[in-house]
Amino acid sequence: MEITRQNFKESLSTVYSAVEEADFLAIDGEFSGISDGPSVSALTNGMDTPEERYGKLRKHSMDFLLFQFGLCTFRYDQTQAKYLTKSFNFYIFPKPFSRTSPDIKFICQSSSIDFLASQGFDFNKVFRSGIPYLNQEEESQLREQYEEKRNQMNGSGTPSYISPSSGKAAVNVPDEHKDFISRVVEKVEALLSNSEKTVDLEPCSGFQRKLIYQTLNWKFPKGLHIETVETEKKERFIQVSKVDEEERRRMEQQKQEREQEELNDAVGFSRVVHAISKSGKLVVGHNMLLDVMHTIHQFYCPLPEELEDFKEVTMCVFPRLLDTKLMASTQPFKDLITNTSLAELEKQLKEKPFKAPKVDCCEGFQCYDTASEQLHEAGYDAYITGLCFISMANYLGTFLTPPKPHISARSKLIEPFYNKLFLMRVIDIPYLNISGPDLQPKRDHVLYVTFPKEWKTSDLYQLFSAFGNIQVSWIDDTSAFVSLSQVEQVQIAMNTSQYAESYRIQTYAEYMQSKHKHTHT
Amino acid sequence: MEITRQNFKESLSTVYSAVEEADFLAIDGEFSGISDGPSVSALTNGMDTPEERYGKLRKHSMDFLLFQFGLCTFRYDQTQAKYLTKSFNFYIFPKPFSRTSPDIKFICQSSSIDFLASQGFDFNKVFRSGIPYLNQEEESQLREQYEEKRNQMNGSGTPSYISPSSGKAAVNVPDEHKDFISRVVEKVEALLSNSEKTVDLEPCSGFQRKLIYQTLNWKFPKGLHIETVETEKKERFIQVSKVDEEERRRMEQQKQEREQEELNDAVGFSRVVHAISKSGKLVVGHNMLLDVMHTIHQFYCPLPEELEDFKEVTMCVFPRLLDTKLMASTQPFKDLITNTSLAELEKQLKEKPFKAPKVDCCEGFQCYDTASEQLHEAGYDAYITGLCFISMANYLGTFLTPPKPHISARSKLIEPFYNKLFLMRVIDIPYLNISGPDLQPKRDHVLYVTFPKEWKTSDLYQLFSAFGNIQVSWIDDTSAFVSLSQVEQVQIAMNTSQYAESYRIQTYAEYMQSKHKHTHT
Ligand SMILES: Nc1nc2c(ncn2[C@@H]2O[C@H](COP(=O)(O)OP(=O)(O)O)[C@@H](O)[C@H]2O)c(=O)[nH]1
Ligand SMILES: Nc1nc2c(ncn2[C@@H]2O[C@H](COP(=O)(O)OP(=O)(O)O)[C@@H](O)[C@H]2O)c(=O)[nH]1
Repeated sequence: MEITRQNFKESLSTVYSAVEEADFLAIDGEFSGISDGPSVSALTNGMDTPEERYGKLRKHSMDFLLFQFGLCTFRYDQTQAKYLTKSFNFYIFPKPFSRTSPDIKFICQSSSIDFLASQGFDFNKVFRSGIPYLNQEEESQLREQYEEKRNQMNGSGTPSYISPSSGKAAVNVPDEHKDFISRVVEKVEALLSNSEKTVDLEPCSGFQRKLIYQTLNWKFPKGLHIETVETEKKERFIQVSKVDEEERRRMEQQKQEREQEELNDAVGFSRVVHAISKSGKLVVGHNMLLDVMHTIHQFYCPLPEELEDFKEVTMCVFPRLLDTKLMASTQPFKDLITNTSLAELEKQLKEKPFKAPKVDCCEGFQCYDTASEQLHEAGYDAYITGLCFISMANYLGTFLTPPKPHISARSKLIEPFYNKLFLMRVIDIPYLNISGPDLQPKRDHVLYVTFPKEWKTSDLYQLFSAFGNIQVSWIDDTSAFVSLSQVEQVQIAMNTSQYAESYRIQTYAEYMQSKHKHTHT
Repeated sequence: MEITRQNFKESLSTVYSAVEEADFLAIDGEFSGISDGPSVSALTNGMDTPEERYGKLRKHSMDFLLFQFGLCTFRYDQTQAKYLTKSFNFYIFPKPFSRTSPDIKFICQSSSIDFLASQGFDFNKVFRSGIPYLNQEEESQLREQYEEKRNQMNGSGTPSYISPSSGKAAVNVPDEHKDFISRVVEKVEALLSNSEKTVDLEPCSGFQRKLIYQTLNWKFPKGLHIETVETEKKERFIQVSKVDEEERRRMEQQKQEREQEELNDAVGFSRVVHAISKSGKLVVGHNMLLDVMHTIHQFYCPLPEELEDFKEVTMCVFPRLLDTKLMASTQPFKDLITNTSLAELEKQLKEKPFKAPKVDCCEGFQCYDTASEQLHEAGYDAYITGLCFISMANYLGTFLTPPKPHISARSKLIEPFYNKLFLMRVIDIPYLNISGPDLQPKRDHVLYVTFPKEWKTSDLYQLFSAFGNIQVSWIDDTSAFVSLSQVEQVQIAMNTSQYAESYRIQTYAEYMQSKHKHTHT
């Protein structure tokens, strides 16, 4: 189901009930870019610590826009012994909802845009019809703005600041506006004594409108309803209506309801994420660290600086996560699966020893055909991510005695995979552990090497050729980590390097220490 | 005429000849945003100096993308006594052209994107079919890369750096690649002794390809043509062909021509800007400072830091500019024209005392109908900018004795308007003078005032209410410039403020001095 600004409101209850009835959810996001650093690989060094990796992704990836969000809900039907799916493809765009709303800037990376364009991605749908959203801070601010305005209109706004115009009469009208305001008062007095129901004042500035509200609320505390109306040309004027108390209350209540609706519209897509979050359901994704980071950053709060705090926020928003790329890279799957990229994984998980899961789409929902791939539409990617999870979960059931063909999303067998998010291209730390401390592999055999920028990988192989197998992790064009195969070789390498002019070596421990010094003084 | 990546090459000669035959050109650009600062108006203070304004626009506006460029050429036909137009609408996007090409990041501002979306702007056309481009630096780099590769393939590349692998045999093959390379040599020897014409080597890494080129060029200096070919799956392998000397030269020349074509494709839209620049023709725009800045920044070079250097570059790229917004804001037009926004200006310039110009579109080109506006398509905006220029130029002719109905783009009457680009919202400096020093209005009557952030414009009016008319130019929410109507009032204001607690006053001269100190120490 494709959801845009146009059908968002009417579809929301469908989304809510799909989430509520589901056994688990799969999600996927499409972004306007991945990294604003010099190169993606400089961002993902093979020797990053979890803290370093999180810090780099936070710094270099969060200014991109998550502009398509895929959600696929999976409900297991016992009687049919199959899963029933509902998949949603949300287009998302921070359309400014009023003159004072935040004007979001986001970065686009031409390689990412070009890639999506080549897949037929519909940018017009994003920019013309994307659903708006607010994070929690913006939502409260907007709520406060509405309340403040309401107070001001009721005349109960008290200016609490030092201003040359405060501390005088109840309504202090500056000289240059005195004429204007007394003309307004005359018009309203005329209204009160004639048979008309309303009078439209002339368009005027925001400051003048404030003066009008203050003056009229003070002079005519009862019997009037005052409202700002916008013309087609976006000019604003004030409309004054004669009302009795009951009518006045009714109109005010209507106004409040209208405001609540405006607020809901502005919160927009964030409401879907809130629903996913509140459901507490298992949320499955493929290589989902960036998806989780973007979702929290865009719809909850700017990401915290420290990894520990990020883990805490994540556990609040998504209490149970599962990353199919991490699952496929872990035993017993690791030995059976050669390629863990989403499309390849999905293919392999249909073949022996795995089994294609039995799945049907619910009525009124798009039925994706995995034979004719629709890759990189977020809704489709979420769908096949869910299929991968089911296949792998069911495979775990074959080890039980007696074997079980269906393993539910709540099974104990799945628990070891909870809240471990795949860490791309880190040599010795497979995942980020969201609900606990991270792995701390020894790095005694790792050297930090600096050299002239003309060096290539082959030069490093040459340099360490005496030591047999080495592993190179480029940092930038004048430095890299080199992992030796044996710890004992480290001292030899350090000794030899003392007399070298073109390159320099430090142990990993020395490197981390001096790095720490740099950032903490 | 709509020009995208698909029809760019075949349309280029049409563009070139339209530029060559034209009497003048009109241009317009559409951008992905205007300002990444806190607010557009904070970017355009009423008391900016030209240097300050240029610096702010350079810093806060150049990371947006110019993604649609409108060009309309105007040629005067004496016999028909009317202008003939050709209008072009170019879609522009920095599609990465190879694996090593720069991966441009650009900012989008949601208000600008939303505005264009509401006008029906086609983002899919930009991102799927935009014409690529290179600036001059990138163009030379790419040219050098091609040359370097050619040298390397001819075996004449000399590594000029300190490397543990240099200074040994002619081709130093690392141990782990020795087997691979000797298998390649065997295959080529087999080719030389059998009746086949070519042999395809297996796909391999860039480093291995380099070794192959070096080895084969060294072992078989004659009789072979070696070339890297890409499979459909983007794997690269080397193809070796047996050739005699003549054939070899011919193939190498073909290769060079192919490379030149690839280079031209990569330079892309910049070639159009080069053509406009070389033509030396008058280039007309409406409120064109940002258009000029973006055009130079994107297609020539990153903008220089200093305004003086920017003026110099601009005069090289666009030797004759004319801004219709500045022209319309200058006498004799200023008194006749109430609204200088493009759409309004165009309407007014059809009415008395002006005359709608006689214009026809050339065959094969889109004829815009100014009655049904197509505003904010760059090609249309360029077209009506040209119309405005013609109307105003011809109006100047009515002052001649005898009056002349047609004033050419080369007329002396136009010269006073050359190279003066409209400065938006600067109170006392109407334009940036590209070909000379800027105006330096006295600012003796201007105060720099700081105050609590709760203050509003009305508080400032209140504060200076004794001095009659004042003009407020907000800087940010705790400071503003206040222009008094008489210089003599400055001293009085300064004296009074000495005892004030909530606000502070400096003269404009004091403010500039302390600002200067801050930025230069
Ligand atoms: N001097 C040098 N730097 C390299 C080389 N290969 C990679 N780098 C640097 O290391 C960074 C990461 O390299 P890599 O992981 O190979 O990824 P990629 O360059 O993005 O394809 C690059 O951005 C370069 O700055 C090399 O052969 N020589
Ligand atoms: N404290 C205060 N700051 C203001 C007020 N009006 C404008 N500003 C500040 O001055 C900047 C420029 O204001 P303005 O030229 O009115 O443009 P706008 O705020 O973008 O519509 C704003 O971004 C605010 O920071 C005001 O009434 N009070």
